[in-house]
Amino acid sequence: MRPKIYLFGDSITEESFCDGGWGSSLAHQFSRTMDVVLRGYSGYNTRWALKVVERVFPAELDSGVGPAPAAVTVFFGANDACLPDRCSGFQHVPVDEYKQNLRSIVSFLEKRWPEAIVVLISPPPIDENARLLHPFIENVLGLPERTNEAAGAYAKACIAVAGECGVPVVDLWTKMQQFPDWQKAYLRDGLHLSEGGNRIVFEEVIKKLKDAGLSLETLPVDLPHIAEIDPNDPLKAFQI
Amino acid sequence: MRPKIYLFGDSITEESFCDGGWGSSLAHQFSRTMDVVLRGYSGYNTRWALKVVERVFPAELDSGVGPAPAAVTVFFGANDACLPDRCSGFQHVPVDEYKQNLRSIVSFLEKRWPEAIVVLISPPPIDENARLLHPFIENVLGLPERTNEAAGAYAKACIAVAGECGVPVVDLWTKMQQFPDWQKAYLRDGLHLSEGGNRIVFEEVIKKLKDAGLSLETLPVDLPHIAEIDPNDPLKAFQI
Repeated sequence: MRPKIYLFGDSITEESFCDGGWGSSLAHQFSRTMDVVLRGYSGYNTRWALKVVERVFPAELDSGVGPAPAAVTVFFGANDACLPDRCSGFQHVPVDEYKQNLRSIVSFLEKRWPEAIVVLISPPPIDENARLLHPFIENVLGLPERTNEAAGAYAKACIAVAGECGVPVVDLWTKMQQFPDWQKAYLRDGLHLSEGGNRIVFEEVIKKLKDAGLSLETLPVDLPHIAEIDPNDPLKAFQI
Repeated sequence: MRPKIYLFGDSITEESFCDGGWGSSLAHQFSRTMDVVLRGYSGYNTRWALKVVERVFPAELDSGVGPAPAAVTVFFGANDACLPDRCSGFQHVPVDEYKQNLRSIVSFLEKRWPEAIVVLISPPPIDENARLLHPFIENVLGLPERTNEAAGAYAKACIAVAGECGVPVVDLWTKMQQFPDWQKAYLRDGLHLSEGGNRIVFEEVIKKLKDAGLSLETLPVDLPHIAEIDPNDPLKAFQI
C-alpha cells in the first residue's frame, strides 16, 4: 500500500489540481510513491474546518486500509482573515480563535496519526487592488474584503502555532513578498494563486516533506521500475 | 467517504498529473466529489500488468475503507505494440495475448468490484518520425520501435475486447487521427501526449463516465458547498 498525503484546506487547496497547481505537481512528483488526496473546501475557515475534521478524516480510515497517512498539509487562514465588516465578513474568524482552531486541528491529526507529518501553510499575501476587481460576492462598500495587513497577522499566528506545536510551517505570506511584482507573479486575482504561486507552494511543501524524511530518495517505488526490468528476462522482476 | 476512480496504465497514465495532464484534469473536475488514484507504471505492457494486478488492487482495499471504486480506467497497449525485432522488443506482447490479458484484467476488476465502471482506453496513434528523434533506449537499427499501423492493430483489439466484455472504450487511435496535424497537436514525442492530447483523453473519459452515470450532476458534493452556507447563520450548514 502506498503512503498517502492529504491536502486539507480552503479554495487554494480545492483548486490545487488546476493546470500547474501545487496539488497536481505533488501528485506528479510522487506518481510512483505516494497518493495525494485532495480535501480542499472552498470558502472554509478554521471554525468550519474544525466542525468537519472528523468527517474529513473518518476513523474508518484507520481500519484495514494499510498505513496511516504519511503527511497532511493544513492550509487555512485566507478566509479567517476576511475583515468582519466587509462583504465577506461571514467568513471572518478572530485571530485568537484562528490560533485555537489551528491548534485543535493539529492536535486532532496528531492524536489520530502520531507518525504523520503535519505541515501548516500560512495564508498568502493579498493584493487589495486586484481583490476589488474580483469580489466573490457583491461588494457594495467598494472596499477590499481582505487586506494584506490582516493576512499578515494570520500568517504570523499560523507560524506561532506551528512553533508551539513543533510542526513544520510554510510562511507563504513572507516568502511571496520577498519577490518583486509578487502581486502579479504569484496571485491570479489578488488572493488565489497563479501558476508561479502554485510553484512556490509546491517547492516549499516538497522542502518541508524532505526535511521530515519524505522524498523520492527515501520513499519506495511502487512495483519494479522499468530501469530495473532485465530486457533479456523481464518476468524475473515480477516474481514474488 | 468519497468514491474513487483508479487510473491503471503505463507511462501515459503515470505522467497524467503533469501540467495539463488528463489525470490532474480529472482530479480538478471531481475536486469535491471523487478521489482520483494514480496507478500508472511506465513501460508496462499487459503481460506485466496482469502479473501485478492483485498487488495494484489488493484485497485489503475492500475491507473497512468504504465503498468500492466507482470506476477504473485501463489504458495499456502502447508498449505491447512495440515491434518484436526493434529496440524496445522486450516490451512487445503479441496481439492475441494482449487481447487475452485485457480480458483477464477486466474480468479481475469486475469480479472484485461488480459495480465499478471499467473504461478501456486504446493506445494512441504513433508518429514514427518523431519516435526516431526520441528513442527510449539506444536505437542501433535507426528504425522506429513502434509503428502507427501496429498501434492501430492493438487499438482495434482493445475495442474488440471492450465489445466482448460490454465495457465502454475510448478509441484514442481513431479519435486523434480525425484531426489534421494530430502528430504535433496531440503527441509530444510521437507517443506520449501533448497538452492537447491530454485534453482529448480527459474529455473522452469524462464522456464515458457520464454515459455510465458518473458526473458532477449525479455525484454528491463532499460537505456543504460555500453557496449553501447561509451568511447569516453559517454554522447551521455544519449541524449533523
